[in-house]
Amino acid sequence: MGVWGHREAANLAYLGIFAVQHRGQEGAGVVALEPEKKKFSAHRGLGLIADIFDEFDFEKLPGRAAIGHNRYTTAGSNVLANVQPFYSQVSRGGVAVAHNGNLINTDSLRNELIRDGAIFSSSSDTEIFLHLIARADPKLSLIDAVTDSLKRTKGAYSLLILLEDRLLAVRDPAGLRPLAMGKFDGAVVFASETCEFDLIGANYERDLEPGEVVEVSDSGIKSYFPFAKEKPTPCIFEYVYFSRPDSKVFKQNVYSIRSKMGEELAREHPANADLVIPVPDSGVTAAMGYSRASGIPIEQGLIRNHYIGRTFIEPQQSIRDFGVRIKLNANPGVVSGKDIVVVDDSIVRGTTVKKLIHMLRRAGAKKIHMRISAPPTTDPCYYGVDTPSKGELIASRMSVEEIREFIGADSLGYLSIEGLYKASGGSEYCAACFTGKYPLGTPADF
Amino acid sequence: MGVWGHREAANLAYLGIFAVQHRGQEGAGVVALEPEKKKFSAHRGLGLIADIFDEFDFEKLPGRAAIGHNRYTTAGSNVLANVQPFYSQVSRGGVAVAHNGNLINTDSLRNELIRDGAIFSSSSDTEIFLHLIARADPKLSLIDAVTDSLKRTKGAYSLLILLEDRLLAVRDPAGLRPLAMGKFDGAVVFASETCEFDLIGANYERDLEPGEVVEVSDSGIKSYFPFAKEKPTPCIFEYVYFSRPDSKVFKQNVYSIRSKMGEELAREHPANADLVIPVPDSGVTAAMGYSRASGIPIEQGLIRNHYIGRTFIEPQQSIRDFGVRIKLNANPGVVSGKDIVVVDDSIVRGTTVKKLIHMLRRAGAKKIHMRISAPPTTDPCYYGVDTPSKGELIASRMSVEEIREFIGADSLGYLSIEGLYKASGGSEYCAACFTGKYPLGTPADF
Amino acid sequence: MGVWGHREAANLAYLGIFAVQHRGQEGAGVVALEPEKKKFSAHRGLGLIADIFDEFDFEKLPGRAAIGHNRYTTAGSNVLANVQPFYSQVSRGGVAVAHNGNLINTDSLRNELIRDGAIFSSSSDTEIFLHLIARADPKLSLIDAVTDSLKRTKGAYSLLILLEDRLLAVRDPAGLRPLAMGKFDGAVVFASETCEFDLIGANYERDLEPGEVVEVSDSGIKSYFPFAKEKPTPCIFEYVYFSRPDSKVFKQNVYSIRSKMGEELAREHPANADLVIPVPDSGVTAAMGYSRASGIPIEQGLIRNHYIGRTFIEPQQSIRDFGVRIKLNANPGVVSGKDIVVVDDSIVRGTTVKKLIHMLRRAGAKKIHMRISAPPTTDPCYYGVDTPSKGELIASRMSVEEIREFIGADSLGYLSIEGLYKASGGSEYCAACFTGKYPLGTPADF
Amino acid sequence: MGVWGHREAANLAYLGIFAVQHRGQEGAGVVALEPEKKKFSAHRGLGLIADIFDEFDFEKLPGRAAIGHNRYTTAGSNVLANVQPFYSQVSRGGVAVAHNGNLINTDSLRNELIRDGAIFSSSSDTEIFLHLIARADPKLSLIDAVTDSLKRTKGAYSLLILLEDRLLAVRDPAGLRPLAMGKFDGAVVFASETCEFDLIGANYERDLEPGEVVEVSDSGIKSYFPFAKEKPTPCIFEYVYFSRPDSKVFKQNVYSIRSKMGEELAREHPANADLVIPVPDSGVTAAMGYSRASGIPIEQGLIRNHYIGRTFIEPQQSIRDFGVRIKLNANPGVVSGKDIVVVDDSIVRGTTVKKLIHMLRRAGAKKIHMRISAPPTTDPCYYGVDTPSKGELIASRMSVEEIREFIGADSLGYLSIEGLYKASGGSEYCAACFTGKYPLGTPADF
Repeated sequence: MGVWGHREAANLAYLGIFAVQHRGQEGAGVVALEPEKKKFSAHRGLGLIADIFDEFDFEKLPGRAAIGHNRYTTAGSNVLANVQPFYSQVSRGGVAVAHNGNLINTDSLRNELIRDGAIFSSSSDTEIFLHLIARADPKLSLIDAVTDSLKRTKGAYSLLILLEDRLLAVRDPAGLRPLAMGKFDGAVVFASETCEFDLIGANYERDLEPGEVVEVSDSGIKSYFPFAKEKPTPCIFEYVYFSRPDSKVFKQNVYSIRSKMGEELAREHPANADLVIPVPDSGVTAAMGYSRASGIPIEQGLIRNHYIGRTFIEPQQSIRDFGVRIKLNANPGVVSGKDIVVVDDSIVRGTTVKKLIHMLRRAGAKKIHMRISAPPTTDPCYYGVDTPSKGELIASRMSVEEIREFIGADSLGYLSIEGLYKASGGSEYCAACFTGKYPLGTPADF
Repeated sequence: MGVWGHREAANLAYLGIFAVQHRGQEGAGVVALEPEKKKFSAHRGLGLIADIFDEFDFEKLPGRAAIGHNRYTTAGSNVLANVQPFYSQVSRGGVAVAHNGNLINTDSLRNELIRDGAIFSSSSDTEIFLHLIARADPKLSLIDAVTDSLKRTKGAYSLLILLEDRLLAVRDPAGLRPLAMGKFDGAVVFASETCEFDLIGANYERDLEPGEVVEVSDSGIKSYFPFAKEKPTPCIFEYVYFSRPDSKVFKQNVYSIRSKMGEELAREHPANADLVIPVPDSGVTAAMGYSRASGIPIEQGLIRNHYIGRTFIEPQQSIRDFGVRIKLNANPGVVSGKDIVVVDDSIVRGTTVKKLIHMLRRAGAKKIHMRISAPPTTDPCYYGVDTPSKGELIASRMSVEEIREFIGADSLGYLSIEGLYKASGGSEYCAACFTGKYPLGTPADF
Repeated sequence: MGVWGHREAANLAYLGIFAVQHRGQEGAGVVALEPEKKKFSAHRGLGLIADIFDEFDFEKLPGRAAIGHNRYTTAGSNVLANVQPFYSQVSRGGVAVAHNGNLINTDSLRNELIRDGAIFSSSSDTEIFLHLIARADPKLSLIDAVTDSLKRTKGAYSLLILLEDRLLAVRDPAGLRPLAMGKFDGAVVFASETCEFDLIGANYERDLEPGEVVEVSDSGIKSYFPFAKEKPTPCIFEYVYFSRPDSKVFKQNVYSIRSKMGEELAREHPANADLVIPVPDSGVTAAMGYSRASGIPIEQGLIRNHYIGRTFIEPQQSIRDFGVRIKLNANPGVVSGKDIVVVDDSIVRGTTVKKLIHMLRRAGAKKIHMRISAPPTTDPCYYGVDTPSKGELIASRMSVEEIREFIGADSLGYLSIEGLYKASGGSEYCAACFTGKYPLGTPADF
Repeated sequence: MGVWGHREAANLAYLGIFAVQHRGQEGAGVVALEPEKKKFSAHRGLGLIADIFDEFDFEKLPGRAAIGHNRYTTAGSNVLANVQPFYSQVSRGGVAVAHNGNLINTDSLRNELIRDGAIFSSSSDTEIFLHLIARADPKLSLIDAVTDSLKRTKGAYSLLILLEDRLLAVRDPAGLRPLAMGKFDGAVVFASETCEFDLIGANYERDLEPGEVVEVSDSGIKSYFPFAKEKPTPCIFEYVYFSRPDSKVFKQNVYSIRSKMGEELAREHPANADLVIPVPDSGVTAAMGYSRASGIPIEQGLIRNHYIGRTFIEPQQSIRDFGVRIKLNANPGVVSGKDIVVVDDSIVRGTTVKKLIHMLRRAGAKKIHMRISAPPTTDPCYYGVDTPSKGELIASRMSVEEIREFIGADSLGYLSIEGLYKASGGSEYCAACFTGKYPLGTPADF
């Protein structure tokens, strides 16, 4: 979240990143700027935003501009030094950076910079941006300096760069990660998801285009396209799982697409059942689509506990399926004696769904038809989503039939990649996690 | 939650009360007993169970028996001295009490006891039970002593009384509050809601009957009916709002009843609309019933934020409807341009729903038909549900049409009391909060 | 500490008990009273006062009267329920009690009360006072009711009893524990030690006499002597160890007496040495007296670490004498090559002084003459000082020569009981911890 | 504190810096190294060591080498980013730095580095060392690279530099700050003060000489003198105030010197008085010297409260001299009616001593002769001691007679600079805080 031109910039940035807490729960921070004094101030911490800013006094983050960030570990370990936004004093003054995405040529860039005298204080790939900007040719204009720096990086990034007199918003040439621009009370605001705008009551203006750089200062808004044109490949996983359903991402409402995935799933994998049961909350939207398309009524056969958020002390005489049960309970009043379709958005390792199915059987369910509103997750992401390694992904090791047997379902159906493209309205997306085809390559290529 | 006969009794009691955290978030505690040593130990705190027992070492609560309780302020202020279970040394040895419900002759009993030399350490009505038991005629048997004591109290109670060699479970003669018995791994367990049994994997055996006293000791289980027979009037609000949908309460599954309320509501108050939109999570079950009965598709037009649980720092330039918006967001991709039926389970003060409707309009909804799956809440509860005073309840001051105008809906329909009875399968319930008819009277009568 | 008649009564009580934090570090609390509203409010916690009241808002403890207390476990375990002042609603209204001392007929009184229907919420002997007052004959005047109650107790107590319209201060007939009265800005204040008055700037007026009851209300101050006259036996250990040196206790300045103990010690046990080395801080005052009487110069051969107050993480390869060393360091620049007299106020178990002597030898000290400014501690206290059991006291098991050998000193001398009386200006004191003669008997007598 | 060659290196470093907590209370940290894996790990925090490492698990800081540091703000603000040791990845691998002292050419070096592409993450002068080492000519040996870097800095430093295969200890050419080497259980240890060795039981070997670099690795210990020879000017303030009395600093025992200051003070400024009263704890050693030289007996007329360490809540009706009184109390039993000599080590702003004298008069002292065991503090330190600005130092604005009148003493005497040199055994020290003569210049010179 970025804000330029509002006297409560830091407070707005904090609320904005709170709305996308689901994008990163490991740490968060806000850097504010008083452009008149060229003075930056920061507050960062490990954990959830609500805890980090609990009873925080926003007068400690004064100024008309601010950027905020939720940490989600995709590179570097989870220590305070890696929590963004990063801030440093460099040759062009103070600069703060918030980075959504992941670079794939981190190692070679980092080694080159270190050989050249740079000191690295974090293990995050984001620090690379600061070093590149700090070392840009001083004769270049700021925009040229920044874009020259960015041209050296490979990978996925949506960036907010806060400088002493302006805020830059950048989306990588492949447009892998989202970035939207809005207006609020005279100020310009940027966000990954439009639900951040909704929370503070800002109006969505438009998405940044792949490869676009937007510069906001007291002189107004300018747009640049400094990068060589590339084929855009936005991340389809934003629709499948990552974004909030009430957000508009890549110009489309996530809920509508997710709902269509459920409808496609019903067409591809019908089932002879009494009820559709969503796995809360990840499977609810697709389950509604499945119910609508199949005509099978939807019911809450799994009830979520509202109060989790910590580890629980399990008895030594361990309770079967405890880890799942503390979060969800099968409702016998609904599922007992019924054939059911259970809908979720993914199977990662397979252990949770196995326990879920066991719990549903214990509550009296007869036939259990498992349906997944996306293709099997077979490959890790290198562009900003923290997926397990290939070996941990059950679908990289097992066939659909083997998975069905492992989880104990009576049938199992995944949405096809074609069905996913159909629901998403196109096939230009990066779907490497389902296909293994990486449009920008992988770290092994650098 | 009560446990007799399991070496991890305290841990099980803690997990059980965690499952019903929704019944009280102000404090919680567990008292454990080593019957062999006649030794009680306790852990209590203010706030949520997960925080109170965070990293707790259950070896500090040893023994084969335990009772646990979530505090929900209906009498006395919210201070640590009022957190249950209460424990004291009395004439018959150590005794611990956990009380679900509320007495209505508290003041006269308390004054009488104080006049007679009792010292009161809390402002909770639960302490009265301890004093009455302590002062019972020493020649009486324990069961007689306890039941004689209980006969002096008026009001609603489900009680767990842990003594040095047995555990008593008591349900008041009117059966206002629920209490169920189960079995787990050789132990006898008691709970307000059966979802507590589900979490630990216990089996539900049966409900206690109104006026029943069950005594569990190493000699087995005994049942008594020491009270004069009264007409049972269990609390219908358990079905409307209080219980978890996956619980069986008063022998019926809550979800099924709540679902039927939605169906009845659709019949009583149909609407010409494109979509049914539930208010998460309170309106979801009834909304599904409404959708099924009306044939209008259900969609998630309101998205809940998963990460709330604290106060948030609002900008000074206050954001319109901030308090609601931090919890829910209207999804424009769903509601824009649509006529919608919004379903919730109650309107208390009317301010929240007013903001919700404003937010939905801003997201593009056209006609908004508000539907409530219960009758107007007109009267406060004196039997264990913490309702606002009569003056604060909007339905005690305004007609349905006035409420509709206040909240800004295009139409407003409440389920009738007959519809509620129909869904609940009978009319013997206490529905004083909707009718003002108090089966046991009110504190003003004592 | 008690205050009657000051609009910041609770804040003053908190500061007063802070000044005597050395008298109890296990818990602390303040109860305040608004006499106009007959409303009591309380704040209590486990640990140190500074932590318990950290950032506390004293507007939560309103009113013109307050009593405060530091917990020091002499009876009952260290749990929050045992932290004083105790407060209850009883037949004569609200009553709060703070108790310095220890009863010896606790068990029989407690059993009698419980048999008679009392419920005990704590394991502290202080709760007995509340029950006795609650059960006093309602026809008696308040003063008679309280004093009749007190007559049933045996043991040591200085009490502050805060009632709805007055504050009572009571000193037991034997006068074992101190209690002083002062004036501050129009208010009447009570304290165990006069250093509490000094901190807030109050003026010391006088000590309460043994067996005196002082009643302070808006009508003024009254004094009563309701108890049968007993021989006063104030506790000599207040002079030896317990009180702060800057306090006046039992009408004498503690420092001056402690200093005289050092002088007497020099006379009784001279030593041929280069330096007198005090053990900080317990031995400093007596060491100065020893130096003055002997003419041997005093030097800081042991340096105290200012920053302790927590447990420290010791390496697995344990460091010799670690527990002592983290608190004190032997200064080689002072002791190396010297014959020294080391002065402290007591040897309890002997393990600490043994390590100290080892550390001094390692720093180069030659002859080490250990001198203790009190007689050998042979017997436990039952009147309010938390001493180890008889078996743990080294002097109850070993002769002086055996102790000398155990601790590794070249010589060892204790002040005689006669010397102690001489320094204290009389022989009427209770010195049971040195003599085994208990003027009121022991719990075994009841 | 630095450790090379002990399997519990981090734990030892933590204990070492705990012993010198008085040198910095604003933050602390330990960086550990596993040389075999070239892996560094760190734990840092704001506040006191005991809090930062409370219940810390030292298995999180594995390895045979470690350095620790207490932060004391002399440059940069007190934020976590400024807490040492600093660690970065640079061209020569990982490097961690702990710095005692202060640079005076910070601004010009920092600007030059930033112009050259460096990014600065902290506002501490210590980060400069990392950048200089990172940018050293790769063809130089490590020792040459480090010493070349150090030659560019001006100011005071004792440094510990932990590299992947060795530990460097460096003392600046003027030798302003102390640094000692010791042995412990086969390991080499470094410390600012020898009391750090005493705590862990290490043996003091020798001081590093001014301008010496000691390199410790698994190959052994090497010593270098790479800097041009300068006149050594160690800081005399270490003797006056900064070091612990039980430390050996600049090869002399601090206690002995401080004691001689008191003796010299007695000779220079005798007084006709009954008692010598030390201000605890800063004035105790000098007071003993004064007493010995003058023959006037020493007594504890001021008693320190052991339990401070937090802010205290003062009543609104403010208590006179509250800030001093919460720490110290005048003992009327000692000072009443007496003429006294009060000894302390410095008067900084004069407000505290003024309150102290007022408090002593209120306790009954007659004549009060104030004696200070060092010359008037007239000038700020730029070499690593955090003194107030010149304007705040009372002695820079007032004559001795004016100060005497301001503080309300009957007489006032400061030790002369000659007396201080005499006690310290030489005149080669930096005494800029007393003389305004800065041997290395001030930041204004760069």
